[in-house]
Amino acid sequence: MSDCIFCAIAAGEAPAREVYSDDDVVGFLDIRPVMRGHTLIVPRAHSGGLVDLDPVLGGKVFAVGQRVGTAMRGALGADGVNLLVNDGRAAMQTVFHTHLHVVPRHNGDKLSFAKGLVVRRDPNPDETAALIRAALA
Amino acid sequence: MSDCIFCAIAAGEAPAREVYSDDDVVGFLDIRPVMRGHTLIVPRAHSGGLVDLDPVLGGKVFAVGQRVGTAMRGALGADGVNLLVNDGRAAMQTVFHTHLHVVPRHNGDKLSFAKGLVVRRDPNPDETAALIRAALA
Repeated sequence: MSDCIFCAIAAGEAPAREVYSDDDVVGFLDIRPVMRGHTLIVPRAHSGGLVDLDPVLGGKVFAVGQRVGTAMRGALGADGVNLLVNDGRAAMQTVFHTHLHVVPRHNGDKLSFAKGLVVRRDPNPDETAALIRAALA
Repeated sequence: MSDCIFCAIAAGEAPAREVYSDDDVVGFLDIRPVMRGHTLIVPRAHSGGLVDLDPVLGGKVFAVGQRVGTAMRGALGADGVNLLVNDGRAAMQTVFHTHLHVVPRHNGDKLSFAKGLVVRRDPNPDETAALIRAALA
């Protein structure tokens, strides 16, 4: 667990652009965003995946994802949002601390979404995080 | 709401291959599965999307998705699972009653996953539903 980057972020021992925080859950920008505002919702308690995630905590993670996704409509002008858990390497999980992706979507964004899957860069992530935080406040 | 196919399924007024049911949530096979076992978890109470979904109910939907996803590892030999909400037309939502996709994944399945996105057919969905139900029982 000392090697887990999301545990380190949750403990404040590794940097992240935080957009949400409570006793159980933390939300921060993905450092390689598919779309501007791409956020990860992470339970503070470590679990490798859905099999060992406490279901009550899972419900809290989802509810925060719902709030953050709704905030993105105002903050980033999103027309929709994808919530996604990749559970297991076969499902494209790359960090083995359970997390929920919240990805804002815009009408007709298929080309920029496809580009985002390759480029995965936000030129101004500090501004993006500030916008989401403000919409959640 | 009388035109909502998922309300009709939840009310038992439209057919579906059910794999899970409780007072708040129902789970059934997607009729156009991307992978064999692709299941939809649906709150019985109607909401068009995340904005008007009761967060407590959202947590229940996610917890059921977690259980069904875990069951798929035993039932279908899945190595992983994707949980996905498409919220809004921009995010590829097509049925406007909130639902969580649970998609079983297998090591090295990228080609069959890509094929599944086009074909979306299970030759024996009754057997698939029975396997998932048995693993949940």
